[in-house]
Amino acid sequence: MMYTIQELRDRVKAELDKQAYVEEPYSLFEPIKYIMEDGGKRLRPVLTLMAYNLYRDDIEKVMTSAIGIEIFHNYTLLHDDVMDDAELRRGRQTAHKKWNNNVAILSGDAAAITAYKQIEAVDDIYLRRTIDGFNQVAMDVCKGQQYDMEFETRNDVTAEEYLHMIYLKTSVLIAGSIRHGALVAGAPENEYNALYDFGGYLGLVFQLQDDYLDVYGDVAEFGKKIGGDILSNKKTYMLIKALELASPADKALLQEWLQKKEFDPAEKIRAVTEIYDRTGIREVAMAKIDDYMEKSREALAKVNVPEERKERFREMTEYIGGRRK
Amino acid sequence: MMYTIQELRDRVKAELDKQAYVEEPYSLFEPIKYIMEDGGKRLRPVLTLMAYNLYRDDIEKVMTSAIGIEIFHNYTLLHDDVMDDAELRRGRQTAHKKWNNNVAILSGDAAAITAYKQIEAVDDIYLRRTIDGFNQVAMDVCKGQQYDMEFETRNDVTAEEYLHMIYLKTSVLIAGSIRHGALVAGAPENEYNALYDFGGYLGLVFQLQDDYLDVYGDVAEFGKKIGGDILSNKKTYMLIKALELASPADKALLQEWLQKKEFDPAEKIRAVTEIYDRTGIREVAMAKIDDYMEKSREALAKVNVPEERKERFREMTEYIGGRRK
Repeated sequence: MMYTIQELRDRVKAELDKQAYVEEPYSLFEPIKYIMEDGGKRLRPVLTLMAYNLYRDDIEKVMTSAIGIEIFHNYTLLHDDVMDDAELRRGRQTAHKKWNNNVAILSGDAAAITAYKQIEAVDDIYLRRTIDGFNQVAMDVCKGQQYDMEFETRNDVTAEEYLHMIYLKTSVLIAGSIRHGALVAGAPENEYNALYDFGGYLGLVFQLQDDYLDVYGDVAEFGKKIGGDILSNKKTYMLIKALELASPADKALLQEWLQKKEFDPAEKIRAVTEIYDRTGIREVAMAKIDDYMEKSREALAKVNVPEERKERFREMTEYIGGRRK
Repeated sequence: MMYTIQELRDRVKAELDKQAYVEEPYSLFEPIKYIMEDGGKRLRPVLTLMAYNLYRDDIEKVMTSAIGIEIFHNYTLLHDDVMDDAELRRGRQTAHKKWNNNVAILSGDAAAITAYKQIEAVDDIYLRRTIDGFNQVAMDVCKGQQYDMEFETRNDVTAEEYLHMIYLKTSVLIAGSIRHGALVAGAPENEYNALYDFGGYLGLVFQLQDDYLDVYGDVAEFGKKIGGDILSNKKTYMLIKALELASPADKALLQEWLQKKEFDPAEKIRAVTEIYDRTGIREVAMAKIDDYMEKSREALAKVNVPEERKERFREMTEYIGGRRK
C-alpha cells in the first residue's frame, strides 16, 4: 500500500511522542526533547519513509532510522543556534537562550550520538553503506555550516559558491534521508543514487524558495516575518544576483543600503525589494527554482518503480516548489 | 612479536604526522590539526594497539581505528574547553581562545564525525560490535561531562557519585580503546569484556592519581601547577573524603576556605593540604588507588593469553599507578 504524506507525518509524530530516545540523566536529554517538540514539517523522516515506501510497505522497519535522521537534524539546529546566537526558532526560545550555551553544546553532542545509534538500526547487509553514507552526509552538513559562517565576512561570494554552500548545508541531509530509505528497502544502487540526486535538487528548491519567500512571500502563508534576510544583509542567491545584474545606479544604491548602519527597517526592505523588482530578480530566482525542479524530475525518472508509486514524491516536489506566494 | 610501548607511541606519532584525516575546507580542519599536534601521551591509541598486540602482530590493521579514537578524544577536549572556558591546554592556548567559540564547536563536530569514520575502518564481521561499543562509549563520555558540570553547583556530591562521574568521563574511553583493539584482533567476547573492565579500573587509577598529584605531586615531575584543584574548590575524591572524615574543627576550617572569596593562593593550598594531612587523606586516596590497581590485575588475569604477552599492560598499569610523587 502507498501511504499519504499526512499518514507518514502522523506515524512520525506518534513515534516521536514515545520519546524512546530519552536516557538518564534527564538533564542531558531535556533540551533534545525540547527542540524535538517544536513541531515543524518532519520533512526528513517523512522522506525516508516515502523512499522506503517506493519499494516496500512495512515502513515500521525503517522508523527508528527515520527518527534518527530527525534527531540528527535537530542536533545541527542546537549547535547552529549557538553559533548564530539565534533568539528564536519557530517562535520559541532557542535552547541556548532557555538554558545556556554549555547545555546546548553538550546536549547537541548527545543528540548526535543518539542519532547515530538510531540511524544504524538497520539490517546487517545495509550497515556499512548506511554508515558510510551517513558519515558523508554529516561531514557535508558541517562543511556547509563552515562556508555559511565564512561567507558572512566575505563580500565576494559568487552565486556558484552560495549554491554549493546551501547544497551542503541543506540539500545533502534531505538527499541522504531519501537515499537511506531506498537503500534499506533493497533498492538497486543506481536507483538509491538517483534518489539522492533527486533529493539534492529538492533541497536546493527548498532553500531557494525560502530565500524567495523572505522577499516575496505572504506573511500569513509563509509564517515568518518578511524581509529578515534583507535586514541582515544575508548573501542569498537573490542578493548575489542583484549585485551582479543591477544597473550601475541600482548597484550603487544597493551597496549603500548594505553599508548603512542605521535605517528604518520597513524602508530598507521596501528600497531593496524595489531594486530587486527593477533588476528582474524575482524572475531570475523563479527560473533557477524551475531549473532545479526540472532536474529533480529527471532524477526521479531514473527510478524504476511503477509511476504511480512516485506520486508522493511528485506531490512533495510540487508542494515545496510551489510555495510562491 | 611484541611491541614496546615506546615503539607503539612512535607508530602512532608517525601516523598522526601524516594528517590523513584533514579534508577541505582547511579552515574546518585546522583547529583539529592544532589540538592534535600538542603531543600528550597518546594513551588511548597506544592502548588500542597494545590490546590488538595481545593477540596479533599486524598492528597496522587497527591503526586507522586507533587514530580515530585519538581524534574522538580531541573532539571531547575541543568542546570541554569551550564549556569550561579553559585558557590553556598542555601549556598552549586552547582552540576557542586562539580562534573563537564557534570555530571550536564546529571543528569539534567535524572531529567527531572524522572519528566515527576512522573508528569504523574495521572488517565487516566486527562492524556492528564496533559501532555499538563506540556509541555506548561516546554517550557515556557525554554523560560524564554532564555530571561534571552539574557537580560544580552542588555541595552534596558523594564519593560514590564522584567516582561514577570520573568513570564515565575518563575511564570509559580508555576501557573502550582497549576493548576495540581486542575485538578487532578476534578476541573472544569474555576476554574483550574483561579487558574493558581492566581499562575501566585503569582509568579510575589514572584520574585518582591526577587528583592526588595535584595535591602531593612534584611540580617538576608532574608538569602541572600544584594545587589547581584546591584553588578552584574542585570536588575531587580527596576533598569529598576530607569533608566526610575530618574532625569537626577541621571540617569547619575547610568549609571556611571553600567559601572565602579573597585569599592568598599559596596560603589556601598550604592550609587545605594541612587539613588533608591531619585527616589522613593521602592514605585514603592511596588506598583507593591500590584497590583499583588490584581490581585491574584481577580483570587482566581473566584474559587467556600467555602471561608474557600481558607484560606491556602490567608496565602501563605500574606506570600510571606509580606516579606517586
